[in-house]
Amino acid sequence: MIELEPVATVRGGRSEAMDDDWDREMAVVELDSRFDSDALSGLADFSHAEIIFHFDRVTDDRVETSARHPRGRADWPLVGIFAQRGKNRPNRLGVSVCAIVAVEGRRIHVRGLDAIDGTPVLDIKPVLREFLPRGEVRQPDWAGELMAEYWTRRA
Amino acid sequence: MIELEPVATVRGGRSEAMDDDWDREMAVVELDSRFDSDALSGLADFSHAEIIFHFDRVTDDRVETSARHPRGRADWPLVGIFAQRGKNRPNRLGVSVCAIVAVEGRRIHVRGLDAIDGTPVLDIKPVLREFLPRGEVRQPDWAGELMAEYWTRRA
Repeated sequence: MIELEPVATVRGGRSEAMDDDWDREMAVVELDSRFDSDALSGLADFSHAEIIFHFDRVTDDRVETSARHPRGRADWPLVGIFAQRGKNRPNRLGVSVCAIVAVEGRRIHVRGLDAIDGTPVLDIKPVLREFLPRGEVRQPDWAGELMAEYWTRRA
Repeated sequence: MIELEPVATVRGGRSEAMDDDWDREMAVVELDSRFDSDALSGLADFSHAEIIFHFDRVTDDRVETSARHPRGRADWPLVGIFAQRGKNRPNRLGVSVCAIVAVEGRRIHVRGLDAIDGTPVLDIKPVLREFLPRGEVRQPDWAGELMAEYWTRRA
């Protein structure tokens, strides 16, 4: 077993998990008081941060360890839990890219973080262009359909 | 504290951490035997996977909790540990995108994974186009310089 201690907490944004329309959400990632603000020095020079967080509201009985239909949609294929990004997964880790709006002291103001108020954050990394996928990204059709309104709901 | 159990292990690739030229490395991400291969079903329909792993070779005394010069380079700015992606970080989490070459049973053959042989893997996620940064990516000059030969060394 590997023991991790949260480094920060999500403050604000949604209070309950709901699919879709996340880019309208503003939130603060607040660094734990054991760190000083120097740990965020230079982060504001990046446009985006990658937040690694823990889906702490997911109970053990909901964790899928094999395959399921994404969002329970029987019209989408049965795919393995490691071939989807849903929250009911072993270790309950979320990894998501959000826009950095401002950094003030130990607080990072972000937009479009798909984690709810109170979520424990395990790491914060800057997004570097060079860490994006090398080469063309291919994905199955169901993934694009699932994501259609994830960030912005259509009018 | 949050307890996590590795879901897989990196097999092959480099046996020691070295900077740069990672895209030449082939490796296997081998799912733990407590999972069946259905947990990877459909993953081969994606071109890339995101691997969340633990830098288990980093000892406590090397973990930086404040700011440092990336790679110890005094000609680069002093930046916070959460404004860089170096391995000597709180919780020692690595997040990296690699190409999926093939999926066979519980084994994912990958190219360009910057984790060494034996590294514990905490999660495997498919790369979805929609989870890439929304909007233009900005980053400071030092980040591009650091990454210049990270994936491919110049001739």
